[in-house]
Amino acid sequence: MRLSRYFLPVLKETPAEAQIVSHRLMLRAGMIKQSAAGIYSWLPLGFKVLRKIENIVHEEQMRAGHMPMLMPTIQSADLWRESGRYDAYGDEMLRIKDRGGRDMLFTPTAEELVTDIFRSHVNSYKDMPLTLYQIQWKFRDEVRPRFGVMRGREFYMKDGYNFDLTKEDALHAYNRHLVSYLRTYERMGLQAIPMRADSGPIGGDDTHEFLVLADTGESEVFYDSAVTDLSFGDRDIDYSDVAQCAGVMEEFTTKYARTDETHDEALFHAIPEERRRTARGIEVGQIFYFGTKYSEAMGATVQGPDGKPTPVHMGSHGIGVSRLLGAIIEASHDDNGIIWPEGVTPFHAGIVNLKQGDAEADAACEAIESAMEALGLEPLYDDRNERAGGKFATMDLIGLPWRITVGPRGLKNGVVELTSRRTGESEELPPEAAVAKLAEIYKGHMVKGL
Amino acid sequence: MRLSRYFLPVLKETPAEAQIVSHRLMLRAGMIKQSAAGIYSWLPLGFKVLRKIENIVHEEQMRAGHMPMLMPTIQSADLWRESGRYDAYGDEMLRIKDRGGRDMLFTPTAEELVTDIFRSHVNSYKDMPLTLYQIQWKFRDEVRPRFGVMRGREFYMKDGYNFDLTKEDALHAYNRHLVSYLRTYERMGLQAIPMRADSGPIGGDDTHEFLVLADTGESEVFYDSAVTDLSFGDRDIDYSDVAQCAGVMEEFTTKYARTDETHDEALFHAIPEERRRTARGIEVGQIFYFGTKYSEAMGATVQGPDGKPTPVHMGSHGIGVSRLLGAIIEASHDDNGIIWPEGVTPFHAGIVNLKQGDAEADAACEAIESAMEALGLEPLYDDRNERAGGKFATMDLIGLPWRITVGPRGLKNGVVELTSRRTGESEELPPEAAVAKLAEIYKGHMVKGL
Repeated sequence: MRLSRYFLPVLKETPAEAQIVSHRLMLRAGMIKQSAAGIYSWLPLGFKVLRKIENIVHEEQMRAGHMPMLMPTIQSADLWRESGRYDAYGDEMLRIKDRGGRDMLFTPTAEELVTDIFRSHVNSYKDMPLTLYQIQWKFRDEVRPRFGVMRGREFYMKDGYNFDLTKEDALHAYNRHLVSYLRTYERMGLQAIPMRADSGPIGGDDTHEFLVLADTGESEVFYDSAVTDLSFGDRDIDYSDVAQCAGVMEEFTTKYARTDETHDEALFHAIPEERRRTARGIEVGQIFYFGTKYSEAMGATVQGPDGKPTPVHMGSHGIGVSRLLGAIIEASHDDNGIIWPEGVTPFHAGIVNLKQGDAEADAACEAIESAMEALGLEPLYDDRNERAGGKFATMDLIGLPWRITVGPRGLKNGVVELTSRRTGESEELPPEAAVAKLAEIYKGHMVKGL
Repeated sequence: MRLSRYFLPVLKETPAEAQIVSHRLMLRAGMIKQSAAGIYSWLPLGFKVLRKIENIVHEEQMRAGHMPMLMPTIQSADLWRESGRYDAYGDEMLRIKDRGGRDMLFTPTAEELVTDIFRSHVNSYKDMPLTLYQIQWKFRDEVRPRFGVMRGREFYMKDGYNFDLTKEDALHAYNRHLVSYLRTYERMGLQAIPMRADSGPIGGDDTHEFLVLADTGESEVFYDSAVTDLSFGDRDIDYSDVAQCAGVMEEFTTKYARTDETHDEALFHAIPEERRRTARGIEVGQIFYFGTKYSEAMGATVQGPDGKPTPVHMGSHGIGVSRLLGAIIEASHDDNGIIWPEGVTPFHAGIVNLKQGDAEADAACEAIESAMEALGLEPLYDDRNERAGGKFATMDLIGLPWRITVGPRGLKNGVVELTSRRTGESEELPPEAAVAKLAEIYKGHMVKGL
């Protein structure tokens, strides 16, 4: 992509309304634009990252054997009356009357609708286990939407629902989700710690939230510092292996890590003092097991092996997809701008031409651009007639993890400069070697984008 | 994918409420489920096709140099009051009050919001031409939603908006859209004929609708039969070449082809009688040039080369993404079910095991499955313990264009059967040759799916 043709409306001024760094940087980098309180348009750069994050979530859910589908944003109130949540949900639910005067709503979550799909189509235990999920826009009519996409009203969420015959099967589904979420966040360069949490309006006993530590987090969290040493890494996982998934669950949830909702001072003080930590965290996901709460209320039963109708055991599992952009930026930025982890960066490297219009420099930039594209890498080539300082500032602001700087002086020696956004370190090397190094860096970090 | 694990709730009975074949087949093939009048859930098979169609639209729009982004579904009424459309739009607009009592709406289209983005960020003619587009859920509160996804209330639409300094530039954008739409539909196996149309509530003079001929179409159309001989094919196109795009426009729109809204009997009768055709058509897209209608109403001006503020010339361009599934099925089915064109099929081939549990047949099916996957092809392997007749009926219903049938008898001779869904013709060949043939067939038809 050539920057001269890209719609990247970066802002020089820091928008006054933005209170936290991710909100400021997303506005300044031309990723989003507010259209109403808590409602945003995703400009091309923001949408590109959103789509990559969405695709990572899809890949990891499908890897776990979960089935992608899509439910509508506008739902009838009837199903929500069956579960009793239409009245219980409160003012955060956006309630709508259609032209026929029927009560509708903009889905804040989809337990009712997916349970209806299940009960309409599945009659036998033989068609289970089944986990359906979607990534779809949701709406929660917050009183005080704030922090940009971190606490918007319209937001993009992955919500998955497992249907199992027994509690044991459903707990395996719970563990499977925990494992797939650990993988998902790590691919995005995030450490998200599963913490015992409160179930809120979804209901149920077993639930963990995934929290990214950040000063701007809305939750106060308490944990044993040993949990931050855990990493899923690239270990092989067989999602049908009950013991293996349970093992990961145990490894990642045994040490103390709780939000203030479930915090227990006595247990916390059983941790050696030097490992006790209090911090703030951003919630980026949550998993629930709630048993037969919805299946009993809505008559979602299957014929069990004994021939008898059995209400199914369910859980639901969410990832805040649009919120993740904010969380990643909160966790990865500096004074100059965003620093994208390799797994989610909108472009793999920026190409900065120090002397636009110089035949040799232009040709070298175009050659690097083509060579990257031939390897499936996406460059953003700043081909504008701007000073080098302005070009560097834009690249730093939008946060591409790697930059190739091309100028007549280097080219005389046959080299360009490859710079890490994270460390600021540069090395000089021939253009082909710079491209080869990028290919090596991004091996294992390639995500289907747009 | 193994069918035993896939959520594919096919229906034996034809649902009574479905009046047209695409609606019936989408319900029977377990692609969609109605959740409220004109509002559907997309079950895994339906979602898989929807996502492929979405990706084809993205690929062709980006190829034309248009920029993907995303606008929210819920918008403030304020912008719509600026353009005057808040009152003009009528009952089809889903109007909402949020908890603060503010007037909101579910976007039926996005001229106002995209114009607001443009005027906020673009000040100079140097930042044009610019075409932004999105694929996003829309809502139109139809009085009588019907025909499944063909005329739903919540529907998935690509809407693109061009911003140009002059009318000439905007007409080039119009032509660029026409060309990209021709490519898009052809990749989906559809012949969609551009027809002169009426502009309706969008406004403007220049507009073409793209219609797929089908008996169940809602529009009456009149055309010169010579237009059905036109095909875009795989000709090379340079989207920045004004003359080339204008040439395609002329080639595809000079012959008479109009909907009943713009039909002109006198012109129609100037066509030789044997080429005059009256038929029905399904609208799958529309392009508009409407000049400065929105930019003047909303103050979207740029500084022109002469330094003076100039209202920009705009157009908007839509493709009915979810509706396309219905249109494709209307155009491509038989008594047994859907016949997917290669470009959009959810799976590239079905594998039918005639003797599940037979070690040799099972091994052969698994080998074919792996060999296909290694080539990037997606098989759907029917590994259920069902009679062959039932397996064939399911494959025919869901419409995969190719089927590989594996049985002990054939394997004794080292062969499997490769069958075309469209022609019903089969050929016997070794498993590796069947896979190689599929790879050949799908060359040029590979689309990023999920």
